[in-house]
Amino acid sequence: MKFNEKFSKATAGMGSSMIRELVATTKGIPGLISLAGGFPSPDSFNKEDIAECYKEVVLESGNDILQYGASEGDAQLKEELIKWEEYKNMSMDEMLITVGSTNAIYYYAKTFINPGDVILCEAPSFLGSLVSFEAEMAELISIEMDDEGINIDKLKQAIADCKTMGKKIKFLYTIPDFQNPTGISMSAQRRMDLVELMAEVNIPILEDNPYSELRYTGEMIPSIFKIAEEKNLRGLVTLVKSFSKILGPGLRVAYAVSSEEIIGKMCSWQQKVNVSPGCVTERMVARFMQKDLLVKQIGIVNDLYTPYWEAMLTALEDFMPKTVKWTKPEGGMFVWLTLPEGVDADELFVKAREQKVAFIPGSKFFPKGQEQHNCLRLNYSYAKPDAIREGVKRLASIM
Amino acid sequence: MKFNEKFSKATAGMGSSMIRELVATTKGIPGLISLAGGFPSPDSFNKEDIAECYKEVVLESGNDILQYGASEGDAQLKEELIKWEEYKNMSMDEMLITVGSTNAIYYYAKTFINPGDVILCEAPSFLGSLVSFEAEMAELISIEMDDEGINIDKLKQAIADCKTMGKKIKFLYTIPDFQNPTGISMSAQRRMDLVELMAEVNIPILEDNPYSELRYTGEMIPSIFKIAEEKNLRGLVTLVKSFSKILGPGLRVAYAVSSEEIIGKMCSWQQKVNVSPGCVTERMVARFMQKDLLVKQIGIVNDLYTPYWEAMLTALEDFMPKTVKWTKPEGGMFVWLTLPEGVDADELFVKAREQKVAFIPGSKFFPKGQEQHNCLRLNYSYAKPDAIREGVKRLASIM
Repeated sequence: MKFNEKFSKATAGMGSSMIRELVATTKGIPGLISLAGGFPSPDSFNKEDIAECYKEVVLESGNDILQYGASEGDAQLKEELIKWEEYKNMSMDEMLITVGSTNAIYYYAKTFINPGDVILCEAPSFLGSLVSFEAEMAELISIEMDDEGINIDKLKQAIADCKTMGKKIKFLYTIPDFQNPTGISMSAQRRMDLVELMAEVNIPILEDNPYSELRYTGEMIPSIFKIAEEKNLRGLVTLVKSFSKILGPGLRVAYAVSSEEIIGKMCSWQQKVNVSPGCVTERMVARFMQKDLLVKQIGIVNDLYTPYWEAMLTALEDFMPKTVKWTKPEGGMFVWLTLPEGVDADELFVKAREQKVAFIPGSKFFPKGQEQHNCLRLNYSYAKPDAIREGVKRLASIM
Repeated sequence: MKFNEKFSKATAGMGSSMIRELVATTKGIPGLISLAGGFPSPDSFNKEDIAECYKEVVLESGNDILQYGASEGDAQLKEELIKWEEYKNMSMDEMLITVGSTNAIYYYAKTFINPGDVILCEAPSFLGSLVSFEAEMAELISIEMDDEGINIDKLKQAIADCKTMGKKIKFLYTIPDFQNPTGISMSAQRRMDLVELMAEVNIPILEDNPYSELRYTGEMIPSIFKIAEEKNLRGLVTLVKSFSKILGPGLRVAYAVSSEEIIGKMCSWQQKVNVSPGCVTERMVARFMQKDLLVKQIGIVNDLYTPYWEAMLTALEDFMPKTVKWTKPEGGMFVWLTLPEGVDADELFVKAREQKVAFIPGSKFFPKGQEQHNCLRLNYSYAKPDAIREGVKRLASIM
């Protein structure tokens, strides 16, 4: 029996993931070099320690962690995270463990969005979050970026425009470190300017930060959350961090920190949506941290990716025509190429596939109707350094 | 900073869980016997085999299961489940693995509900699901049950009334086996009548079935899903089953089966909400099944609970006054008591707490405004048999 005429408006309006479909068209091509996805390298997975931690926690604490657990998340894991991040004056009620970052972002969206509300985001931005906001019937307004991150003047203009038009802005979504898809990191000064502006206009910030631990050069920039903390603006920024790029996305463990007010509401959604994250896996990660394995693991991951990143930036220098520009990330997984005006990366994708190299056309990272086409994203966390170099060479040859 | 004035309507209207708050008032009372919660006994947890399966799958398949996994769920686990349940002509696209049953129910709700839509449910029913439907702004209409399950005549009447009032019914939610909170199982005949009626009026059924494997006497009744299958009505029934009561709720693994149309939409929601379930835990369960441990485990669980259940039913016979009536479940975790008219179980709860015994007042299992008060739920899966007997004795003494 068919029931599509009974589906909710949000469901009827949902498309499938364009990026997934695009990547699917490159599957099974022999010799294809994929610079398309955002998968971490399997060589980064610490199977031995993870296997051992799983076994230990189930044997030792099975009665606790096989039982129903707190919707707020595992207390042991929270304790480790608060120590690790050196959060000051943070109570357990200001942190929520979730089933990956996307899950935390979804709860935040549910907490704030009524149909028709405006969400501000960077142009371009991470599609996985944008579609979540769209599924809650939000209107997305994307703000241009420069080398230092989101453009504050353009942001002010967008906020003023919304006010004029009577539109309700609910929050700003940003990925300040090694942004997906551009690789751009927001400068410390820009973060401070952003906090100041948003506190003034009373618009909260959702800081999505899955990549900050993947730094191969340069110095760590404090999170927007920490900058707001120093100004006693708890609640202005909700920070989401993930273990996906360090321990493995298959675990589905991330966490959010914010005010007790916002975390409490996000937790109410977790109760309705998942009851709690997987308790065994939460405790496994807590054990991994208790054994001081995390600092070692981050070192291993960064040592692994540094030559991948070098191979990408070197190959771009060596092979790309002068008319192509690209960002200079100091870490993360992605670099963003800007092609001459008029070149369409969606068309280039088809030609590149014939040359057995894949990327994601830039248009896929903009809200509907706000697309740019002369741009593309390359990944440097999955294909190995030699393949990255060869892939960039093939790509350059068709430009 | 406070942002409550920016919260979505659904968020602003959310209450906290009344059952959780009630249970919290009994915590820390020394000697208290809890017949309140719905927790499985920790004695049912197979820590050794689960620990070993976790270790094995991470060591052997870590590159696969620590990576991003399918939103549809782990193919190995689906394969095992299709074999286990003897589903005929079922493709992988007709099954979705989820982060527990509540998660599957949430996706189903998101697939169908627009604000103001009507959801039909049993009176009483499982509050965790009802609040999910309410969070999507649905109107709940509860239908009386008798010893054989939902009353078909009352159901027909409710459907007719909705038609008259121009209300849109989206689906019927039912727990046909050892229902929470009543312990009632829907008879085979009633299931057939229900399928016939709902096919005729074109209203789909959400069958929530976490307890059917916990049978201590009598014969298994085919699921509503299977009855509809025999009439080639794929899609009419979406069945949700869980490992929570067999392996442990802390794992957060359940699954849904339905038509490809409905499962596809639920999967699109999973992509937005969780990306995928925890891949390591999914594969651990697959391994547990591949090693033929599940049939043994279900035997162990049923052997464990049989004396719990016997203790409950015997104690009710031995101690309860003649004016109190109760259901006669053949399995599961709950029995439902009906007190004389005018007795308020919410008031009884306070007196019982003084006598150091806890239960859940029946009113908590009805939609707002449709409460009944002379009823209550007792659990027999957590307190041990001696404590169950003593708890019932204490409860009887205050009636």
